[in-house]
Amino acid sequence: MSKSHIGMYGLGVMGRNLALNFEEKGNRVSVYNRSLAGEENIVRNFIDEAGSDSDYFAADTVEAFVESIERPRKIVIMVKAGAPVDSVVDELLPHLNRGDILIDGGNSNFNDTERRVTALSEKDILFVGMGVSGGEEGARNGPSMMPGGNADAWDQIKPIFEISSARAFDGTPCCQWIGKGGAGHFVKMVHNGIEYADMQLIAEAYHLMKGCTGMSASEISEQFSAWNKTELNSYLMEISAEILTVMDDDGQPLVDKILDSAGQKGTGKWTAITSLELGIPLSGITEAVYSRFFSSLNSLRSELSKNYEPRETPITEKKRFLMDLSEALQAARITAYAEGFYMITKAGQQFGWDINPASVSKIWQGGCIIRSELLRPIESAYLNNPDLEHLLLYPQFSQEINKLQSGWRSTIKTGIDAGIPLPCLSSYLSQYDALHSKKLPASLIQAQRDYFGAHTYERIDKPRGSFFHTDWKEK
Amino acid sequence: MSKSHIGMYGLGVMGRNLALNFEEKGNRVSVYNRSLAGEENIVRNFIDEAGSDSDYFAADTVEAFVESIERPRKIVIMVKAGAPVDSVVDELLPHLNRGDILIDGGNSNFNDTERRVTALSEKDILFVGMGVSGGEEGARNGPSMMPGGNADAWDQIKPIFEISSARAFDGTPCCQWIGKGGAGHFVKMVHNGIEYADMQLIAEAYHLMKGCTGMSASEISEQFSAWNKTELNSYLMEISAEILTVMDDDGQPLVDKILDSAGQKGTGKWTAITSLELGIPLSGITEAVYSRFFSSLNSLRSELSKNYEPRETPITEKKRFLMDLSEALQAARITAYAEGFYMITKAGQQFGWDINPASVSKIWQGGCIIRSELLRPIESAYLNNPDLEHLLLYPQFSQEINKLQSGWRSTIKTGIDAGIPLPCLSSYLSQYDALHSKKLPASLIQAQRDYFGAHTYERIDKPRGSFFHTDWKEK
Repeated sequence: MSKSHIGMYGLGVMGRNLALNFEEKGNRVSVYNRSLAGEENIVRNFIDEAGSDSDYFAADTVEAFVESIERPRKIVIMVKAGAPVDSVVDELLPHLNRGDILIDGGNSNFNDTERRVTALSEKDILFVGMGVSGGEEGARNGPSMMPGGNADAWDQIKPIFEISSARAFDGTPCCQWIGKGGAGHFVKMVHNGIEYADMQLIAEAYHLMKGCTGMSASEISEQFSAWNKTELNSYLMEISAEILTVMDDDGQPLVDKILDSAGQKGTGKWTAITSLELGIPLSGITEAVYSRFFSSLNSLRSELSKNYEPRETPITEKKRFLMDLSEALQAARITAYAEGFYMITKAGQQFGWDINPASVSKIWQGGCIIRSELLRPIESAYLNNPDLEHLLLYPQFSQEINKLQSGWRSTIKTGIDAGIPLPCLSSYLSQYDALHSKKLPASLIQAQRDYFGAHTYERIDKPRGSFFHTDWKEK
Repeated sequence: MSKSHIGMYGLGVMGRNLALNFEEKGNRVSVYNRSLAGEENIVRNFIDEAGSDSDYFAADTVEAFVESIERPRKIVIMVKAGAPVDSVVDELLPHLNRGDILIDGGNSNFNDTERRVTALSEKDILFVGMGVSGGEEGARNGPSMMPGGNADAWDQIKPIFEISSARAFDGTPCCQWIGKGGAGHFVKMVHNGIEYADMQLIAEAYHLMKGCTGMSASEISEQFSAWNKTELNSYLMEISAEILTVMDDDGQPLVDKILDSAGQKGTGKWTAITSLELGIPLSGITEAVYSRFFSSLNSLRSELSKNYEPRETPITEKKRFLMDLSEALQAARITAYAEGFYMITKAGQQFGWDINPASVSKIWQGGCIIRSELLRPIESAYLNNPDLEHLLLYPQFSQEINKLQSGWRSTIKTGIDAGIPLPCLSSYLSQYDALHSKKLPASLIQAQRDYFGAHTYERIDKPRGSFFHTDWKEK
């Protein structure tokens, strides 16, 4: 029996679909999943469903699994992030040979990946941490993949992953090497952070349209579809339009029956926490994470709303309002992507990962949740200037937001008057205005800190690194 | 020679001043500081400065230091947070006896304190993590102190600390037992988070006044002084008014010479990170932390400002503008304190610390950086209803913000028109509006998550805990 090209450890939804995807592209795939005594046999079930003409090796033991794969082995691990990954690595390790490659395709924390790459390279095992985006469907038909870690692995795994991935606008595979260590999982983490922001921005637009104009779900859906044909095009806009057409059994929009308490799996939180740890500002994505927290306080909100008089929401010029709103959305989205890419490039420098932001914008163009038309000019920006410090410095974006900002500002003012919370739309405007402020009032904050804590300050007329203290009370 | 009542390990600014404070209150104090070879003798210098009629024991060795203190020993550790605390504990441990008390008065992370309390209680050493606020001056003349940890220590250390602390409005010492484990340092951390927000709010008001009205530093100082005589009274408002009267050698306001790049020591970051880890929303304080990050990007801001046309800033009715601004400040401050207290009460429940929020509002009334008139009604709120879930549920506050919100909303709109970033003022308004929204658009976010990731959702017409999935594309 011929050996397999690749192994898949873990047959959850993502693992199954990736295995089906690999096999369909002409690979023989070994599959393995731990089975508990008395539980149904996950591996057998998978093989039965796949059909007899498919090219799998169903392993009953981890030894047989490893043995069935051609060397150097390529084994994808698709299990829950955290301790389970370490446990699987420990289980596989005694059976591996030097030069074998382990690819963690789960949503692992990049710090764990960083640690695993180093620890395994000492044993001559090549560890790759690969972010995979696109959900079930992406995994089955072509996800966006962000591999990073031990660079020696890349040439060997490249053919299998490239052919199984989605395609960018120009047909390039949405799978390119991201960088050393935890770079792949880091980029996937920021991808998810941007996803949080993009979802929240659409939700805020929906809230405004519903609250201020009384548009029905169908009308909002039509507006989203129309926007999806403009520069606001994105997968999230597309599915939001579709969602709003779905009716419940009683003929009412299903979305109105859904409890307004947003869940999360943690990657948005990680992005926010990491930005704080690294000292990189990420206020918009973090507001999106907090918005989910606020949404989950349903009973507190219900209590508080009792003492609150709803505000007037007079929209007289609906057409103008919708035009402003589209401008607000686009301006805030550009700022959100700029925020995410700034974090990627800054962290890449801090960690020495050497990330190519043009590659990142390319592999996000297909397969993943945040795929959108906006990634086209972002890629151009980085291709034209690989060292671009911040996307808002790119003339196309600065000119575009200059045109959009009046609608952006009006939209937020409408929300303020209506009492409709716009945490992301307004946080991004604050960010935009702060980034374009040559002078911020942090000088007063430095004076306060020096007043009560003798923390010292720098002066605008002295070189950086010279620190001064004033005894403010004696003056 | 009689034994000392208490020992001070670490004679940095805070340690020196606390030791002077303890001694002044009638305690004999043993002092110790590691001295490196060739360095000046920190302990001797301290004693020389204190004068010969003072009641200190200057220890040359850690053995002599511990030996000089009456049992059960009370030793305050005032060293840099982190590894140095563990190092000092390890150094002291072999010389201690059962029942001795170690009090860490530094800005330690509450997780470290939690760990130390448990580890040392196994050795019958009583560990206390105590937040100390008030800066140098507070430490010298009466700080606000937040002790938590091993509760068996409290009765023994209470007399020394109460008499050395600041006083609340009613004369009660600003030092009360906070709770078990890391509770004391946790409360101090949130205190610092609120401090970040309060400083940022004043800075935003300053930015608006300067940018929109052209008021001079002296005029702004006068306005701050006037506000300080109203419900906006606070230590931070008071020192901001003072700061703006200080002129540089050339007669220009010194604050204008200070580089607008705000530093930080990390406790604000910790507060934000902890809120994310615990799933407790803290968007306003976190925006204040990010604002310091943005301020530090001076060269990027300078670059970006080149492509940006300054916006019109027409304030015609200055009196009205200032009235609105005062309302905005007060409304945002109430929301900021409510945010901080919500984190304290929720975390207290999660960790089982049994924190009394009325005590917290009392000990912050004197000595600490965020002391302010606002803590008076906050204390009343918790005294009237110790189980109050959120301060905004308290009728006095909900009525007050109802009156203030129109000025709050106008002020932010003024900033939006002027292009002046108001991250904290506007984030708190979003928070206020989100908390008072019976229905948020998170239903759409749940639908999106279910669409692309089969994450399921709950329904408003079904019990909590029942999860549904829809195949949105088939509909």
